[in-house]
Amino acid sequence: MKVTIIGVGLIGGSMALKLKEKGFAEFVYGVDFNENHLRQAKMLGIIDEISTLENAAGNSDLVILAIPVDATRKLLPGVLDLVNDNQTVMDVGSTKSGIVDVVKNHPNRNRFVAFHPMWGTENSGPEAAKKDSFSERAGVICDKEDSAADSLQLVEKVAENLEMNLLYMDAESHDIHTAYISHISHITSYALANTVLEKEREEDTIFQLASSGFSSTVRLAKSHPEMWVPIFKQNKENVLDVLNEHITQLRKFKSALEKENYEYLEELIRNANKIRGILR
Amino acid sequence: MKVTIIGVGLIGGSMALKLKEKGFAEFVYGVDFNENHLRQAKMLGIIDEISTLENAAGNSDLVILAIPVDATRKLLPGVLDLVNDNQTVMDVGSTKSGIVDVVKNHPNRNRFVAFHPMWGTENSGPEAAKKDSFSERAGVICDKEDSAADSLQLVEKVAENLEMNLLYMDAESHDIHTAYISHISHITSYALANTVLEKEREEDTIFQLASSGFSSTVRLAKSHPEMWVPIFKQNKENVLDVLNEHITQLRKFKSALEKENYEYLEELIRNANKIRGILR
Repeated sequence: MKVTIIGVGLIGGSMALKLKEKGFAEFVYGVDFNENHLRQAKMLGIIDEISTLENAAGNSDLVILAIPVDATRKLLPGVLDLVNDNQTVMDVGSTKSGIVDVVKNHPNRNRFVAFHPMWGTENSGPEAAKKDSFSERAGVICDKEDSAADSLQLVEKVAENLEMNLLYMDAESHDIHTAYISHISHITSYALANTVLEKEREEDTIFQLASSGFSSTVRLAKSHPEMWVPIFKQNKENVLDVLNEHITQLRKFKSALEKENYEYLEELIRNANKIRGILR
Repeated sequence: MKVTIIGVGLIGGSMALKLKEKGFAEFVYGVDFNENHLRQAKMLGIIDEISTLENAAGNSDLVILAIPVDATRKLLPGVLDLVNDNQTVMDVGSTKSGIVDVVKNHPNRNRFVAFHPMWGTENSGPEAAKKDSFSERAGVICDKEDSAADSLQLVEKVAENLEMNLLYMDAESHDIHTAYISHISHITSYALANTVLEKEREEDTIFQLASSGFSSTVRLAKSHPEMWVPIFKQNKENVLDVLNEHITQLRKFKSALEKENYEYLEELIRNANKIRGILR
């Protein structure tokens, strides 16, 4: 099968590597506006040929959009214009409502499958790509009833080859859940980094002292705005909803400390400990 | 050398295992009010003998208090009562001012060295102990001028055997820095877990969707209140100071989203990205 990867970065690159290793992708076209990334991807064996969108889409069985969610919204209708009934288009975006909405009346809507692989790191670019990144992670297909049976089946095969655990939900539910599970963690992490950078002027001390707990909590704060601003923008209402709740929860800790109510503090912590039963 | 470990849990157990492996500790007494932990520690080779505090302290060159910081405050004066000028006592607590304060007028103050190994996990108990836990981590000695030269040297040897990077600071500075670097991360993580548990009633969905980013951000929320309430209590002022700043920083994200000011949102994220240059 011939596959086009639009956006040969961390996600697109990792998918290409795995799909090639599995023999699922026999030939991979790479499309990207970043020429350095294209050259690196070619050199790293992520793609077989650097191509234009028109040439790649015209010759591929499957086109994967692996670019920021705002760029996906812009590009997706034009990509669907280029494909026929034997071809499938999928995305990998962290928001879904805004993306399915932009093609809801497109004549080729049923060739598109909205997909979200629940994996990422704070790094980016083809050099960060790793073929086993998706194994055992959740892969979400949204609004499957809007996709043609053969397109849906093809994307299910992709998920299987990536060794992901498939879930199905509607785009709106997806965006609510990801606000909790992924988007708020990023805001917390950014805000924590800004707190430390604001208050802790002795940068050497941060560097020397930073414990593993701190490093893992602020790891996500290294993530780039090019990817995350569009996600927060497209999922604004849900993210605000969760953010307001999070600030309320933090105020409870503040109040417990200010009032020296350590029984309440303990209760708050015991409640948080319940996450142990939910997350392994 | 004979060593007493008071509190044969994650930290005390990990230290004992490493100090024994290095040949630094030839015989280890274990003291703990939890008899299960004592039996497990004996079985796991963490300690050689289960003992009373009086017997262990009377026969050891070095006594290590590895218990929650409130228990250290209570127990430390009595332990210093038991030792002579050939013995050394150290702690491993995550706060320092409250601990050095309680022994500042003790006649044996100079036999005590205030130490903080900057490592921990969300797990506890002797079964969670691992001998290489401290390697390459920061180890902080506080108020070294209040310790006798030979006691200080002995604790420096302990840090060296644990393969830690030694730092020196006064207890007050330590408590300010750890509020930023360690304590606030825990509050953020607890509050994030409570946010998700409050808003996200579909626990199965959390479990299935949770991405690696979420898991690493809420990992610390599994940490026990027995250890953390006393830390927050002893470092209340610093923690509140940082917590207030953190809520202010989160409100900036909220405001940027509410006003749909995405340039400001990008600026906030770019600022947070600077943590990349400070944390590897």
